[in-house]
Amino acid sequence: MLTPSDKALVPFVSVDNMMGLVHHIGIEKVLVDLAADIEADFKRWPLFDKTPRVASHSDVGVIELMPTSDGEMYGFKYVNGHPKNTKEGLQTVTAFGLLADVQSGYPVLLSEMTLLTALRTAATSALVGKYLAPKGAKTMAMIGNGAQSEFQCLAFKAVCGIDTVRLYDIDAEATKKAARNLANKGLTVVPCSTAQEAINGAEIITTCTADKQCATILTDNMVGAGVHINAIGGDCPGKTELHGDILKRSDIFVEFPPQTRVEGEIQQLADDHPVTELWQVMTGDVVGRKSDSQITLFDSVGFAIEDFSALRYVLKNIRGTAFFDDLDMLADPDDPRDLFGMLERRLG
Amino acid sequence: MLTPSDKALVPFVSVDNMMGLVHHIGIEKVLVDLAADIEADFKRWPLFDKTPRVASHSDVGVIELMPTSDGEMYGFKYVNGHPKNTKEGLQTVTAFGLLADVQSGYPVLLSEMTLLTALRTAATSALVGKYLAPKGAKTMAMIGNGAQSEFQCLAFKAVCGIDTVRLYDIDAEATKKAARNLANKGLTVVPCSTAQEAINGAEIITTCTADKQCATILTDNMVGAGVHINAIGGDCPGKTELHGDILKRSDIFVEFPPQTRVEGEIQQLADDHPVTELWQVMTGDVVGRKSDSQITLFDSVGFAIEDFSALRYVLKNIRGTAFFDDLDMLADPDDPRDLFGMLERRLG
Repeated sequence: MLTPSDKALVPFVSVDNMMGLVHHIGIEKVLVDLAADIEADFKRWPLFDKTPRVASHSDVGVIELMPTSDGEMYGFKYVNGHPKNTKEGLQTVTAFGLLADVQSGYPVLLSEMTLLTALRTAATSALVGKYLAPKGAKTMAMIGNGAQSEFQCLAFKAVCGIDTVRLYDIDAEATKKAARNLANKGLTVVPCSTAQEAINGAEIITTCTADKQCATILTDNMVGAGVHINAIGGDCPGKTELHGDILKRSDIFVEFPPQTRVEGEIQQLADDHPVTELWQVMTGDVVGRKSDSQITLFDSVGFAIEDFSALRYVLKNIRGTAFFDDLDMLADPDDPRDLFGMLERRLG
Repeated sequence: MLTPSDKALVPFVSVDNMMGLVHHIGIEKVLVDLAADIEADFKRWPLFDKTPRVASHSDVGVIELMPTSDGEMYGFKYVNGHPKNTKEGLQTVTAFGLLADVQSGYPVLLSEMTLLTALRTAATSALVGKYLAPKGAKTMAMIGNGAQSEFQCLAFKAVCGIDTVRLYDIDAEATKKAARNLANKGLTVVPCSTAQEAINGAEIITTCTADKQCATILTDNMVGAGVHINAIGGDCPGKTELHGDILKRSDIFVEFPPQTRVEGEIQQLADDHPVTELWQVMTGDVVGRKSDSQITLFDSVGFAIEDFSALRYVLKNIRGTAFFDDLDMLADPDDPRDLFGMLERRLG
């Protein structure tokens, strides 16, 4: 074979290398650092090229592309959502992503993003919790103990300082798995038998369930004054987790309204129901939590800018490490007009 | 490291492997086969999920995502267009693409597409030529002798049976390069000093120039009755190659009107100027060439379905060969809900 030139090579972070990188840095530090990088990008929100994700729906799931750009770098994520996958031994969500240089259009990073999405979703939730959760919150109810749950618990510990998590899942095995994974992580872990039991004394309620349908994980009478609700699972059309009455009692915070109105909990509400954009809370333009009795709700669906921040974090942190491989992904003839000649010479 | 399971691995076709695969099959056979596969997909056009590409424009170029799906497979291509790159020793266009299984959302192929795009663009042009060029056409003018030109010439030879190409480029070095690459390929190659000279006696005129601006490569008085024009280069907003008067004398054929009206030559015309969709010519619903004196124009911009066909062609043809590597791209824990546990076990 011909030896590809440097320009032809794109650093690729495999799943194994992503795991290695996370352990190398330390998972809680990764979550704290990611939250800080996402916060910095939220604070320069107007700069970004923003578009709702491009979704291809089928009967059984969705495949989405989530692009964005800050004018210097371009990034996108490929991500699927197939709730029925779990029963078949597959992940509900798998993802990978790419960063490219806007000036040349050349990719500069390809990375697995199944793990990275779990990390950035948790980091974003905890970052929002830092702004909206009641002061001094120490206890979080974690409803839905699937693949995202441990990341959420650790992120809220590392970023917001919670010390107790109360776990509930309709499948007791999932709760056992999460409790096992969270043992010896510096958290008091309380497995619970009902959602009602889980939210007892919790100042923060995180819901993260995966059914592709309108479910009611929380009913209105379960939610007391002053809590912060971190609603992760309602993230595609027709999929919600909270009773509409809870939404009406809450002040609702979102990432990108045009996307959240279609995919989030607020698809249950009128199109003009008031919501607050989180970036404005972070820049200080808008007040987040106004009182101790207020119910704040983060209607999380995940936005491309969070993936962009996460990919840049990975690019920054793999430099000088062995946590990537160079991929011969770009054709790079000596004379850029001579693509055909390059192909011909490969014969030799 | 842990050994990734089969589900975690995605076959990846590098640039070197793509070149190897093309030589293994033979480039003219690849072009003929690709044209046949693209034709088959055009004939089932209504089946596809179609959307104009998602573009991110900057001062110097564009980065695009081109997704589509036939309900069984999903595909997308990442492609940039940066005309100024050539001067910096970089490709104007680089690309890669992915196929995924709609049922699971899991990727099944990642491939370089810089070379593959050159091949599928040429195959599409020649396929369209087969339907629209005057009967017995033997001579093609090739105006613009950059990276795409040799692929175009070979495709029209292999698919349409031309035997002579007349080359012209504003840069004589580019013409020399193309003539050199096309020597001993079974074509009579005639380098020309002007565009006017190049189109002498040509029944097919292919234009493929890369400036990101409205250029006039062909003026009205240069184009005689009966020719088929294959206009490749006008493929983004603000970029055209042909004088508007030529368009008005031609019957215009396009891939996907909502995309071509924004990106193609017809951006010069009224929004409701009549155009014919090529898939309808291929299914026989609409007549293509109606007379010997008619000027037919393929206003080519490239559409996602062509990339989809090309990616499926690659997937089909790498089976049982060594022209791919397995990429550890998807996190695949034994228990799909236990992503965190997989990460933890990586420590051990």
